[in-house]
Amino acid sequence: MVTHLTEEISRSVWYGWGDPARARPLNAGALEFLRRTLRLTDVSAAHPPVALAAVRVGPCALGEEVLAELRAITGPEHVSTGATERILHAGGKSTPDLLRRRSGDALGAPDAVVLPGGSGEVGEVLALCARRKLAVVPFGGGTSVVGGVEALRGPFAGVVTLDLRRLDRLLHVDPLSRTATFEAGIRGPAIEAALAPHGFTLGHFPQSHQEATLGGYVATRSAGQASTGYGRSDQLVKAVHLETPAGPFDAGSLAPGSAAGPRLLDAVVGSEGTLGVITRATVKVSPAPADRVYGAWSFPTFEAGAQALRRLRHDGARGDLPHVCRLSDTDETASTFKLGGWKTRTLSRYLRGRGQTTPALALFVWEGGRREARARRRRGARILRRAGGIPLGPLPGKSWEHGRFSGPYRRDELLTRGVYVETLETAATWGRLEETYASVRGAILGALQANGGAAYVQTHVSHVYSDGASLYFTFLAGLEKDGLAQNARVKAAASSAIVEAGATITHHHAVGLDHAPYLAAEIGELGVRVLRSIKDTLDPGGIMNPGKLIPPETPGAAGAPIPAAPPSTITTRDTADTEDTP
Amino acid sequence: MVTHLTEEISRSVWYGWGDPARARPLNAGALEFLRRTLRLTDVSAAHPPVALAAVRVGPCALGEEVLAELRAITGPEHVSTGATERILHAGGKSTPDLLRRRSGDALGAPDAVVLPGGSGEVGEVLALCARRKLAVVPFGGGTSVVGGVEALRGPFAGVVTLDLRRLDRLLHVDPLSRTATFEAGIRGPAIEAALAPHGFTLGHFPQSHQEATLGGYVATRSAGQASTGYGRSDQLVKAVHLETPAGPFDAGSLAPGSAAGPRLLDAVVGSEGTLGVITRATVKVSPAPADRVYGAWSFPTFEAGAQALRRLRHDGARGDLPHVCRLSDTDETASTFKLGGWKTRTLSRYLRGRGQTTPALALFVWEGGRREARARRRRGARILRRAGGIPLGPLPGKSWEHGRFSGPYRRDELLTRGVYVETLETAATWGRLEETYASVRGAILGALQANGGAAYVQTHVSHVYSDGASLYFTFLAGLEKDGLAQNARVKAAASSAIVEAGATITHHHAVGLDHAPYLAAEIGELGVRVLRSIKDTLDPGGIMNPGKLIPPETPGAAGAPIPAAPPSTITTRDTADTEDTP
Repeated sequence: MVTHLTEEISRSVWYGWGDPARARPLNAGALEFLRRTLRLTDVSAAHPPVALAAVRVGPCALGEEVLAELRAITGPEHVSTGATERILHAGGKSTPDLLRRRSGDALGAPDAVVLPGGSGEVGEVLALCARRKLAVVPFGGGTSVVGGVEALRGPFAGVVTLDLRRLDRLLHVDPLSRTATFEAGIRGPAIEAALAPHGFTLGHFPQSHQEATLGGYVATRSAGQASTGYGRSDQLVKAVHLETPAGPFDAGSLAPGSAAGPRLLDAVVGSEGTLGVITRATVKVSPAPADRVYGAWSFPTFEAGAQALRRLRHDGARGDLPHVCRLSDTDETASTFKLGGWKTRTLSRYLRGRGQTTPALALFVWEGGRREARARRRRGARILRRAGGIPLGPLPGKSWEHGRFSGPYRRDELLTRGVYVETLETAATWGRLEETYASVRGAILGALQANGGAAYVQTHVSHVYSDGASLYFTFLAGLEKDGLAQNARVKAAASSAIVEAGATITHHHAVGLDHAPYLAAEIGELGVRVLRSIKDTLDPGGIMNPGKLIPPETPGAAGAPIPAAPPSTITTRDTADTEDTP
Repeated sequence: MVTHLTEEISRSVWYGWGDPARARPLNAGALEFLRRTLRLTDVSAAHPPVALAAVRVGPCALGEEVLAELRAITGPEHVSTGATERILHAGGKSTPDLLRRRSGDALGAPDAVVLPGGSGEVGEVLALCARRKLAVVPFGGGTSVVGGVEALRGPFAGVVTLDLRRLDRLLHVDPLSRTATFEAGIRGPAIEAALAPHGFTLGHFPQSHQEATLGGYVATRSAGQASTGYGRSDQLVKAVHLETPAGPFDAGSLAPGSAAGPRLLDAVVGSEGTLGVITRATVKVSPAPADRVYGAWSFPTFEAGAQALRRLRHDGARGDLPHVCRLSDTDETASTFKLGGWKTRTLSRYLRGRGQTTPALALFVWEGGRREARARRRRGARILRRAGGIPLGPLPGKSWEHGRFSGPYRRDELLTRGVYVETLETAATWGRLEETYASVRGAILGALQANGGAAYVQTHVSHVYSDGASLYFTFLAGLEKDGLAQNARVKAAASSAIVEAGATITHHHAVGLDHAPYLAAEIGELGVRVLRSIKDTLDPGGIMNPGKLIPPETPGAAGAPIPAAPPSTITTRDTADTEDTP
């Protein structure tokens, strides 16, 4: 059996990602690339985070009486109002989150951090907060990059962040049905470690894998790097237990294939803590693969590569799709080649000789039984070659896998060196993929260059569906004096371009605070009202994660940007004009 | 390319199924089987339906003013208050529905039948009915077997049935993304005929295929005979357009893999006309298969066969699962063999010689490219043989396919001959499949024999999932004097057994009127309240299909049976007791 290269790390540092001891410094080639590409004169480490002691947090707004009530529920050692704990829960891991904390601003920290010991305690805390009119923010790994764990007070006097780290057990494995039930606060590597003795894997490896929790996966409809093979979190989950201010709610059924009305599980999956707290989840598990084989192919253009991925999905036998499918655009391929040392430079020369001057690199991982994985790669190779791919062997894929969880560490170092870097993602149908790519990329680049600076945008496809694919954009520029304004400018431009393209505002980062203003464009005003009605039933006081996911009653009320164009994500709208013609 | 053996038939006869000219009479062997098995002395055709002219319908409760308003929307030729149209829309196709109509009772018929010509007209009719306080029943093929199209008035003075047969067009095919958008009133064979020139199939073949509509499939989360391969309707649908009393609502997105909050599409799919009228749907389509190959295997017991199906699902490569998987229990196998003439008697003797005295027959169909389908059958055969199966060649599968849509015709003839026959279905996890089978089968048999008569129950698995399988029960007995009471007795016993077993109250027949009393046991009281809140938003006046799906506010208020035991379908409940222990 192959290992999953996932290992437990300590809880994240307050100003950035994971355990800083694990970060590898940028090498000279990377620094040279930044200098040249972004035209930066100074890329020294001149912008470190402030000292923890210098970080500002407001006073705790909770009175002694409430704190005593909280302590009575969880035990006093599991309620903290100390500055460090509050700073550690002051937000997620988006670039603006980090910019704020690195500059010493944790004024948005919660008033208290509570660590419940079980589902029952979560329910008691919610009842208390409903009675006391306190906002509640559920907190798993705290890796949201869309403001999902911001400790917003909403209209309430105080806010309590519920950190679920103590709910970290595997409760049950059903090997016959291939399902497992976990407490929701368990983190990615611990999930894999718990399943390994049973011979199973969850197969869920988002870049946040080492930090993020199962509850967070489910609450945000996350997708991982191998989700093309194993399925997204919303496809893996069978049932959840939710504690809500209106009481406990079991959504989903263990009986497969039910026709008993609307699937309410899908109202909870993706609810981002706005309806209640997911405390348990039953998920589909898969046999841990006996083997994992790698492949890389180069295509003359990004468009040709995308068509090759579509062919792989459509023309291959149903089971032949690789578990991991990644296709970089020419910019991402160029930076990968430039930063990869002499080996990739050789590769680059080889491809030039074969006529690919601006290649697009595709990486694949097939998992399964030893013979089976190889046979699938063989069948896939035929399709990829026919689609114009030049095979590059297993090494590029292995090299990617080795660094698959290291991206967030690099961001911390880039910020320290005065480089702005952020990512965002969307998904589109095959027919709209190219135009979505071009317009979103153009919007990001334009917004980054608006003040005259240089910028770099690189993109990849990371998830391949029958009807389309995801697009993941990574972009860099010199950090402007007001980095938050710089970030807001780019994000607004990209989001408007996504809405105009009829793509989804988020493929796997969720809605949170940042995308809430665009939700009505995607699901309609009536859709937003449906969401509100569900929330009113489960959270009548509105205490659960206020401000997230569901836009406020009056669009634009909270100074939220209004999308530039009406949505066009629903095909049926395309055909509406032919509606009543014969 | 192989044909799908689906052909357009005329709209159904008022007292039973389809076009009676297509029914083949029961042969002497079948009559003998009934006489012997059910101990019936008289199986002559002594119980024909009354003449259409003798059927009782109440007076139309709608005034001329309302009718004029309806006619102004659709044109006068599309509003009918005539007895025949009203009788044709007086209910669905469950055995009690047929018993009522055959005896001349159509007193539950709607006051008027309206045939809108497009989505806009549907919206206008809903607005009118909301203003006039009239109940609205959406009607596709009218094949509900759970009371889903009963023209219940609820608290309203009148009820209008909206027949969607005029919304029958293919609107758009996206060959790159493999999706197609249809108007919702299109019937199964017309869907296939429209897709064929594009080289696609929907692959949805429920037994009601020739009558039922796409909107009905989606509204009821239906599964078809090949859904193990192509997916259930809830897996095929990508987006729907719903007309509601609160306005038009587009649910679902064409962008694949969105993480933009709860998937509201899943609130509409399975809503059974209680939220609004589905007028358009975009669905996943698949390449029409170049070949279809058949296989049959015999197993020593039903349990051994079920384990073989699980092995086929779990041990085979991901794409090797047959599109059709059916496993009959020993009773269904025995009746199949007895009614199949000399060929099956030979088969039966052969199996006895091989030690299988009470065999369980499994049928499979693999679809795909010519070499591919055969290769998959070959790989599947290895697994089935290893699991104790004796191969029986392609003929039993072909024979099953030939008669795949004829079951409902047989029921009409059985009722005419004084034989009670009905079906019901559930699904359970692999671990609970055997106990669910035994207890539901026992409950049906016990209830049928309660008055001392003989009965026959036969069962098959028709859908195979990673985590479990469906169970479909067909049962026969002499028709008692009060057939409706006989039916209610059996249905109540079976439903209670299903709830107690922790299985789902319905795998593909939906909730309708019959299963509504059991919904709270499956989704919880809070789940029912969530459903009600969604309905209150989209249908504030409560006019949409009253009485269906969502149980009334006070459980048991409408004389509804209360389930015998609390639900146990959610795993997390199983583990709740270990919840707070270390």
